[in-house]
Amino acid sequence: MNLASLRPLAEKIFEDVRALTHDGVGVTRASYGEGESAAGDYLTELARAEGLEVSVDAAANLVFSPPGLAEGAPVAWVGSHIDSVPQGGNFDGLAGVVAGLLCLIARQREGVSDALPTQVLAFRGEESAWFGKAYMGSGALLGKLSAADLDLPHRETGKPLREYMTAVGADVQAIAQQQVLCDLSRVRAYLELHIEQGPVMVARQLPVAVVSGIRGNIRHNRIVCLGDAQHSGVVPRWLRHDAMFAVADLIMRLDEHWRVLLERGTDLVVTTGIVQTDAAEHSITRIPGHVNFSFEARSKSTDTLEAFYQLMRAECSAIARERGVKFEFDRRLLSDPATMDPGICERLSDACRLQGVSFEVIPSGAGHDASLFANAGIPSGMLFVRNQHGSHNPHEAMEIDDFMTGVQVLSDTLGRLS
Amino acid sequence: MNLASLRPLAEKIFEDVRALTHDGVGVTRASYGEGESAAGDYLTELARAEGLEVSVDAAANLVFSPPGLAEGAPVAWVGSHIDSVPQGGNFDGLAGVVAGLLCLIARQREGVSDALPTQVLAFRGEESAWFGKAYMGSGALLGKLSAADLDLPHRETGKPLREYMTAVGADVQAIAQQQVLCDLSRVRAYLELHIEQGPVMVARQLPVAVVSGIRGNIRHNRIVCLGDAQHSGVVPRWLRHDAMFAVADLIMRLDEHWRVLLERGTDLVVTTGIVQTDAAEHSITRIPGHVNFSFEARSKSTDTLEAFYQLMRAECSAIARERGVKFEFDRRLLSDPATMDPGICERLSDACRLQGVSFEVIPSGAGHDASLFANAGIPSGMLFVRNQHGSHNPHEAMEIDDFMTGVQVLSDTLGRLS
Repeated sequence: MNLASLRPLAEKIFEDVRALTHDGVGVTRASYGEGESAAGDYLTELARAEGLEVSVDAAANLVFSPPGLAEGAPVAWVGSHIDSVPQGGNFDGLAGVVAGLLCLIARQREGVSDALPTQVLAFRGEESAWFGKAYMGSGALLGKLSAADLDLPHRETGKPLREYMTAVGADVQAIAQQQVLCDLSRVRAYLELHIEQGPVMVARQLPVAVVSGIRGNIRHNRIVCLGDAQHSGVVPRWLRHDAMFAVADLIMRLDEHWRVLLERGTDLVVTTGIVQTDAAEHSITRIPGHVNFSFEARSKSTDTLEAFYQLMRAECSAIARERGVKFEFDRRLLSDPATMDPGICERLSDACRLQGVSFEVIPSGAGHDASLFANAGIPSGMLFVRNQHGSHNPHEAMEIDDFMTGVQVLSDTLGRLS
Repeated sequence: MNLASLRPLAEKIFEDVRALTHDGVGVTRASYGEGESAAGDYLTELARAEGLEVSVDAAANLVFSPPGLAEGAPVAWVGSHIDSVPQGGNFDGLAGVVAGLLCLIARQREGVSDALPTQVLAFRGEESAWFGKAYMGSGALLGKLSAADLDLPHRETGKPLREYMTAVGADVQAIAQQQVLCDLSRVRAYLELHIEQGPVMVARQLPVAVVSGIRGNIRHNRIVCLGDAQHSGVVPRWLRHDAMFAVADLIMRLDEHWRVLLERGTDLVVTTGIVQTDAAEHSITRIPGHVNFSFEARSKSTDTLEAFYQLMRAECSAIARERGVKFEFDRRLLSDPATMDPGICERLSDACRLQGVSFEVIPSGAGHDASLFANAGIPSGMLFVRNQHGSHNPHEAMEIDDFMTGVQVLSDTLGRLS
């Protein structure tokens, strides 16, 4: 089945959803918020107009199915997410949902069905930018979101995730009990198409790539360093307890450890995405007494994550002693690294070869909903589509040609599953 | 003249002004804002009830005078400020104004006049916390506030200083032209009482101290470090342009230079009171592409300030090269160090000896309105009153006994000027 004729539809969907969720700079589709719901409503209407069935699961994710799919029948799932970071790009997440939908639409329009029928899942709440927690929608579905997670505050309003999920119809009671909210035994495969978020494919001129595995991460959303706020002019260096100098010291120590670990061939990236002196009390003439910051390390290895985390805690203790400050940590969050299913990777690779496109098998630095399905024991696979300027910014630039190549590879792979 | 009987009045004034400007945590008397005006109105009413005259100068500062003071007559000025930092303490600034007022009230009540009459100035806008610029009220009076300064944005509203000064009645046109808004030739002396903002006097058990000189400072309110905002999981270390790691690097380099300079006996303190990743775009999973921070160095030596500033700029250039980031600087602000008048210091010391209190002559780490008068050629002197827990925080703790000792020393000194 050739999906080339769906290219104008693909362009229209991306353009319409961008327009619906444009924020003046990029797109904003807040997890369990306005833009996310707008995108979901748009896709629901479009799918129904094409004769597809749309339902909402107990975690408030959207499920698109071919009409008349027997309950409990074995299926392949194609999923990705419809939320974005604030001022994000249009393709991160949305591309995968649209790709799955185009596969369903092509089959529906041509009256074709596969040996293993496909359902498309549009997850809410994948981005950690909003509540400090990633994979909320897929996590809730798989019983991996805890009652404590439901208490996480929204970055702007401070209201808990629980409230936002309830508002869009999720069953937060079942989620808090960590029930698995679907019948996983019938899911034979999970596939996800996603834009590449790093610079590798552009550099290597690869329109698509098959993902071998996904980096895990270890995080604190909020570490607070407490020092002693004093007038900047009157306290000599040896009497200071400057929370900002302490945090700078920590960052530079982590940077040095990171450099050394890389020289040993360790897979690791380290980021402090948020660092802030306390706006309620900071001033040019005040020694900072309160700095909050986030910590994230990512690696393909759980051991590396754990070891680097312990190193970070040890450096905090050393700095606390040396500089007379105190570090306070919120809950530690761990997302395990995941390995994609070799059989599915092989089928995706075969489909790439069939299209005659150059591709490679590469690891994913970013996390994806697919990692949760892989770690839940479902054979999973991911296909990357080339994208310029990275993601989580308004300058994402996926070429529609590359996208349609990815959709064709995805469709061919789905047609060969059983 | 013994001022001990004014102690209950002093306590009442401090308590009333605290209650008027309490913000739930400390006091907030924003420069050219609500709390500052409330304090000024309260003091105006109180002074008039005591038979004093109150006027407003062209920079919107309050001027308290004995009744019938001849225009152009030689005077001594006693000044300090009535604004505070956000969530600040009750005594920083206010103590000096109240001290001056008590001296005027004592003379008025007893019908006594000095050889050289006293006027008390209550300056607005001394704290740099609000517009990133200190000594706005006294600076405007002395023709030291520029048109560029009048464009400085308010920390919360972003509206320019000009607008705030106009709203309270200042002549911003004359200020923009840097006119001297008073007849300085008749001002024979400038005296200021202020709480100590450092830990020295508590440690040495000195209720009062005579100030020998005032540290100057060099500042940028806002330096922006620009890197490349990217997804935190996908960009390896050598391809990153992390603005936060760059700023941490800068802070640690400055800390090291500072340590070395202190070992050589240099007088220096260094502070980055404000450091913030950009709240509009930051996230745990985004490499910071935009960090803004403040820079301040203080020293008794202009040469040290200049040298350390050049060092800071050189390190920024080095880091920009090494980390592929860019630093953008707003206007550099310099406040010159100031030396207090030896003759006035001697008179203040004599008055301390007369009271039989232990005192020392010490330098001021913090800046004060007095430095502008000293640098304008007016013989100036300052008296510190012991205070616990520093200043610019809600825990300032000046004992009323120490304050009344200071008021007596100030009054005795005024009585001996000519």
